[in-house]
Amino acid sequence: MSRYLERAIQGIGPLDEKTMVAARARQDSLTKPQGSLGRLEEISVKVAGIKGEAMPALEYKAIITMAADHGVVAQGVSLYPPEVTAEMVQNFLRGGAGINVLARQVGARVVVVDMGVASDLEPHPGLISKKVAYGTRDMTKGPAMSQEEAIHAVEAGLEVLEQEVGKGLDIVGTGDMGIGNTTSSSAITAAMCGKLVAEVTGRGTGIDDGQLAHKVMVIERALRVNQPDARDPLGVLAKVGGFEIGGLVGVMIAAAAHRVPIVIDGFISGAAALIATGLAPQLRDYLIAGHVSAEKGHRAALEHLGLRPLLDLEMRLGEGTGAVLAIFIVEAAVKTLAQMATFPEAGVHEAGERIETKTD
Amino acid sequence: MSRYLERAIQGIGPLDEKTMVAARARQDSLTKPQGSLGRLEEISVKVAGIKGEAMPALEYKAIITMAADHGVVAQGVSLYPPEVTAEMVQNFLRGGAGINVLARQVGARVVVVDMGVASDLEPHPGLISKKVAYGTRDMTKGPAMSQEEAIHAVEAGLEVLEQEVGKGLDIVGTGDMGIGNTTSSSAITAAMCGKLVAEVTGRGTGIDDGQLAHKVMVIERALRVNQPDARDPLGVLAKVGGFEIGGLVGVMIAAAAHRVPIVIDGFISGAAALIATGLAPQLRDYLIAGHVSAEKGHRAALEHLGLRPLLDLEMRLGEGTGAVLAIFIVEAAVKTLAQMATFPEAGVHEAGERIETKTD
Repeated sequence: MSRYLERAIQGIGPLDEKTMVAARARQDSLTKPQGSLGRLEEISVKVAGIKGEAMPALEYKAIITMAADHGVVAQGVSLYPPEVTAEMVQNFLRGGAGINVLARQVGARVVVVDMGVASDLEPHPGLISKKVAYGTRDMTKGPAMSQEEAIHAVEAGLEVLEQEVGKGLDIVGTGDMGIGNTTSSSAITAAMCGKLVAEVTGRGTGIDDGQLAHKVMVIERALRVNQPDARDPLGVLAKVGGFEIGGLVGVMIAAAAHRVPIVIDGFISGAAALIATGLAPQLRDYLIAGHVSAEKGHRAALEHLGLRPLLDLEMRLGEGTGAVLAIFIVEAAVKTLAQMATFPEAGVHEAGERIETKTD
Repeated sequence: MSRYLERAIQGIGPLDEKTMVAARARQDSLTKPQGSLGRLEEISVKVAGIKGEAMPALEYKAIITMAADHGVVAQGVSLYPPEVTAEMVQNFLRGGAGINVLARQVGARVVVVDMGVASDLEPHPGLISKKVAYGTRDMTKGPAMSQEEAIHAVEAGLEVLEQEVGKGLDIVGTGDMGIGNTTSSSAITAAMCGKLVAEVTGRGTGIDDGQLAHKVMVIERALRVNQPDARDPLGVLAKVGGFEIGGLVGVMIAAAAHRVPIVIDGFISGAAALIATGLAPQLRDYLIAGHVSAEKGHRAALEHLGLRPLLDLEMRLGEGTGAVLAIFIVEAAVKTLAQMATFPEAGVHEAGERIETKTD
């Protein structure tokens, strides 16, 4: 591990308990039956604790969508040709992808990062280049990347997040693009959660039963060849991970160090969160599970992380699409905390206050 | 039934199947794996079918929050004094309630209607007065309202919705305020779904076990005294309903007749939907279940309606708070349909297109 990464991990402090008590007390004073806003109340208190503000506002919102290619696609694990990774990056930059549409609706900026796309991408003002390599190597034949490349990827994520903090960042969502990356994420999830490959491997872009059986075999081979060990999360990343996943690990670590709430997206972000919390267990308190993906394996990751998803819309697109919808819910939560009237302010009677006794 | 109400019910046509086929085809051409936006895709196609537009836009959004009092509160079924209904209406008009905060975030207007608050409310430009009476009568002693009052309440809902259509209305959410109205809604749900009272009666504003047992007994007495019959939905409304519930029935019928998608809120809106679909079964196709309330009984209502909720945030506030958050999700759904690039537009390869064969 590098000094830069170590310092970032050491910079992650506990949540601000005192502020959380104040936020909880305010929620209980607002004009509604106590607890009636359900998970909005819980999330508002968590965000208050993360940001150290009893009435936090989420002015600056960003989705960081990291893209990279995967050598394992040579094994025929996806319906789509690998060129789609680069093509979708262009789609992000032109604003035509799902994440662009949803981020516009939520008022979040989309930060597109080339972490390791297999081709050269034209420079573009909206594209951050942190290319570690032209895609990972085929993990069925050896490690997907070297230990140095894994650290580079994570450090690139730290840098991207810190640059965004400089522009103003109150909440961040994670996103991904990479043909083949559910295969890598299944391998990570199996290794980090101690699950059987078949338990955490799904249909990705939509493969059929035969293709799924093949995908499971490919992942089992990658695990047999590489022997990843959950006690060495960076080793797991290097052996069966991806550059975009490594980048998201760095984003999460830096965000927690800067007290920025992190809304994780689906299965690939979940795999990154498993690595990130493996490196920095205290990071878990900064995570909000945006949604549960339809991709099998995501539930196992969320259970391992001890997180309950906010949304279940049977989505499995990635890009940050689940995260950005959840950011809207988080914003709703903190707005109720900050903007609703209290009982005294509104002149509304509280529970148990009997004004007159009507009995008959 | 009045001619006005009959005409509105007869005005509810089937969904536009041809437009739904076109919307489905467009969803399948967008730059994402088919089906990967999950329920967003399903909802976008439904809204297209309701509005008869293959790429519908939701410019004008409204929550109609109807308030009324309930005579059954004399039986001690709520933690809150009945005066809170009127006080919360004032809170709505000043913009300090949960629904105001969330509607501002979503860009929806809040239409506040006095359907039968037990006191005189000051005139206010933001308040529509459709007061049928000063609260219902105690349903444990006889019908909550007369058959004429029930029809008046429903017709008032028709009028309110039609007035909002005149201002521009692309989607409507339902909301309620009324101390005691979970008691009425449990009675309606038990009667319309053929459930035991204990199966569909929850803690409302937060009553304890003893108070809950009392509430169940009160509702059982109301059902015994009134003998509501599911085959006569207006009779159920009159015997154990509320004026705000009747108003919401009218809102739903008129919205369906005007091809406006209806996002129903929680338990009280669910009870109104049971009556509304009892009167007009074809109305069901126009309903979107915004969320599932933490209030027990709402699940039974949704199952009976055959609707799956979009959100489950353990909310139980009413006012339209669950509906308005769901309207945001519906808007996200139709925006992806209208704004995402197709594969040819974006120059992205589709599933199964193999550009080069990498095997080894």
